[in-house]
Amino acid sequence: MAAIITLTTDFGLQDEYVGVMKGVILGLAPAVQLVDLTHAIAPHDCRQAAGVLAAAYPYFPSGTIHLVVVDPGVGSERRIVLVQGGGHLFLAPDNGVLTPILRAGVGETAYEVTREELFLSPRSHTFHGRDILAPVAGHLAAGLAPAATGPSLALAALTTLPLPAPTLDLHRLRIEGQVLSCDHFGNLITNIDQERIRNLQAQRPNETLVVTVGTHRLLGLQSWYSAVPPQAPLAIIGSRGTLEIAVNQGQAAELLGVGPANKITISLSPLYKEELSI
Amino acid sequence: MAAIITLTTDFGLQDEYVGVMKGVILGLAPAVQLVDLTHAIAPHDCRQAAGVLAAAYPYFPSGTIHLVVVDPGVGSERRIVLVQGGGHLFLAPDNGVLTPILRAGVGETAYEVTREELFLSPRSHTFHGRDILAPVAGHLAAGLAPAATGPSLALAALTTLPLPAPTLDLHRLRIEGQVLSCDHFGNLITNIDQERIRNLQAQRPNETLVVTVGTHRLLGLQSWYSAVPPQAPLAIIGSRGTLEIAVNQGQAAELLGVGPANKITISLSPLYKEELSI
Amino acid sequence: MAAIITLTTDFGLQDEYVGVMKGVILGLAPAVQLVDLTHAIAPHDCRQAAGVLAAAYPYFPSGTIHLVVVDPGVGSERRIVLVQGGGHLFLAPDNGVLTPILRAGVGETAYEVTREELFLSPRSHTFHGRDILAPVAGHLAAGLAPAATGPSLALAALTTLPLPAPTLDLHRLRIEGQVLSCDHFGNLITNIDQERIRNLQAQRPNETLVVTVGTHRLLGLQSWYSAVPPQAPLAIIGSRGTLEIAVNQGQAAELLGVGPANKITISLSPLYKEELSI
Repeated sequence: MAAIITLTTDFGLQDEYVGVMKGVILGLAPAVQLVDLTHAIAPHDCRQAAGVLAAAYPYFPSGTIHLVVVDPGVGSERRIVLVQGGGHLFLAPDNGVLTPILRAGVGETAYEVTREELFLSPRSHTFHGRDILAPVAGHLAAGLAPAATGPSLALAALTTLPLPAPTLDLHRLRIEGQVLSCDHFGNLITNIDQERIRNLQAQRPNETLVVTVGTHRLLGLQSWYSAVPPQAPLAIIGSRGTLEIAVNQGQAAELLGVGPANKITISLSPLYKEELSI
Repeated sequence: MAAIITLTTDFGLQDEYVGVMKGVILGLAPAVQLVDLTHAIAPHDCRQAAGVLAAAYPYFPSGTIHLVVVDPGVGSERRIVLVQGGGHLFLAPDNGVLTPILRAGVGETAYEVTREELFLSPRSHTFHGRDILAPVAGHLAAGLAPAATGPSLALAALTTLPLPAPTLDLHRLRIEGQVLSCDHFGNLITNIDQERIRNLQAQRPNETLVVTVGTHRLLGLQSWYSAVPPQAPLAIIGSRGTLEIAVNQGQAAELLGVGPANKITISLSPLYKEELSI
Repeated sequence: MAAIITLTTDFGLQDEYVGVMKGVILGLAPAVQLVDLTHAIAPHDCRQAAGVLAAAYPYFPSGTIHLVVVDPGVGSERRIVLVQGGGHLFLAPDNGVLTPILRAGVGETAYEVTREELFLSPRSHTFHGRDILAPVAGHLAAGLAPAATGPSLALAALTTLPLPAPTLDLHRLRIEGQVLSCDHFGNLITNIDQERIRNLQAQRPNETLVVTVGTHRLLGLQSWYSAVPPQAPLAIIGSRGTLEIAVNQGQAAELLGVGPANKITISLSPLYKEELSI
């Protein structure tokens, strides 16, 4: 069975950079399945890349190699690391792009990728995606053992980023979180997970959830986008399993004037939804 | 021989959504060939998706599975359907994206996709592309019989959209149609098919075709874009086999101030092309 | 081992055009690996396509077929050519997109692609990518001998474009070149190759390289982007092996107000870098 390699970069699709990496990989692993997660990460935005990778990897089969090339420190002393865990391999610069995976305890073993015989030669100072990461991914896809890429590294030694975490205050019956990103549909993806909302609701099962975002107050969670009229806002559990603020057939970010880093709160109200709507 | 799955969505390429669908498919059908038709359908634009699919599918080999995820009603009661016809399989929400294929009589059998054992579990209310359509496509690519996806459905029961049709008035010697879309080159794709133009011309073979679009009058059909000077407009039979309005090495939509839904008429003139040009 | 076909076009990703070409190819060569180099070449920009192809092809394994469809003369009398060299096959309209490959002496044999049995039938006047180039690439991937595509053609008979060449003036100790393109990161890719810079430096090894671009003067070549502070400009040898002007974590094109065709000069100064910086 052919290996799968996913690619996540901030390269865009205008230049030859992504194609060149694929050429290098295919020279080493001709039968590999190459899957683009996205190449539209904002330049050097390690947090965004971390979010995309964490949301996507669980949907790939065991054995998949995930290659992340968002690499503001390319050519400098920053390490390149290989993390093995949950049946997957994650290959990336050690700059925090693996933070959610490490936080979730997915990582089992880690290696510092140092074995130069695996790299292209000569190698540039500006494109380690092509000269180091792609050939190492190709060798792994062709069957190289992870431990053969370099010395092991303690998982605790890996760089992590301070990602914003939501808070659940059971005394005040209130969750505070924030918008992480805005997707192609203008949906606002937040960091408030479904479990935290269930915990809050479980305190007072008969009360109504009130989601406050910017100057808007949304009542209850909807079951689908079209449960509200076109152009109306709604709160829903999105495809990442977290609270999402959307507008049915519209762009929530634009219509609500809300974007990444904006605060979201969830509270409970003893009033019925119908009363609150008046 | 590996199956082929084409993907047509309104997801854009910024988020992980397309990659995630591919991960789900590859988990079920590791050797599949995945081909993006486009992910740049305008959000929720079922008409645009219908046009792209109808134009593209005939160029794929028999046995190809065409997956369309433009799904404004995701999570609601709208059905998911599988249509078999012309050697192809079409898997999509039942919202009209298959209209041209059904109108053309390509469909032979249809099924309502209901067999939950094929779906991901749990499944979200916001991303049936990942949770229903991708796994069903993966199972089909791996050899599942179409009839095993759910009960049959009468073709006539499928949702169709009122797509604009051109009219040929042989009394007034006139075709009326409209611009359907504007492509990446600024070429205006119309709904006036080559056969209708041949029928009109056949009435008076010695007369000159006059294409009127906005305030512009174009004489005759050109055989290639560079048959007119750079930046000059022209009428030509485009790659979909329909009338296309283009500008040699330029953007017709912008230069002519014409776009989707604008009217196009074709008539005949007894004058020679040279006389009309004066 | 499955063949690889790379695709370079100016089609964008909005329409079905790229997908349709892939469908045609897969119908003939079901196991082929398809790799997009880019579909974001500016419409009809043969120079840009030439640059992308020349930079990318060496990273693909021997036997790769490179398909270029940037074709302002589609449907007219311009030839379609197949060039074999360096273990690769290059299939493109004869409009200069292969110029750097021909200049570098990579081409060994060339053919005019004329054998109509290989083409789709009927074929349009507007989309030879689909009707001629894709099926010929598919046949080649399936094992067709290059010589079976049409009569041989002298390499010297192929169309080439006057690409700007840098000059090295050893008398005045000065290199003059220009910006070729601006990549997704805003980095300015120039036509000044590493060898020419080494030659200049070798004249006076103890002197400092001074790169002048617009109103900016950059001292020395950096080894990586982060060798200068964030938002500071730098000169570096880029991933194409040529001089690149970048801004650490920023957009050089925008910050320096420089773009394609702008002049770049490199000279030497007897002063130390530290003195020049004052």
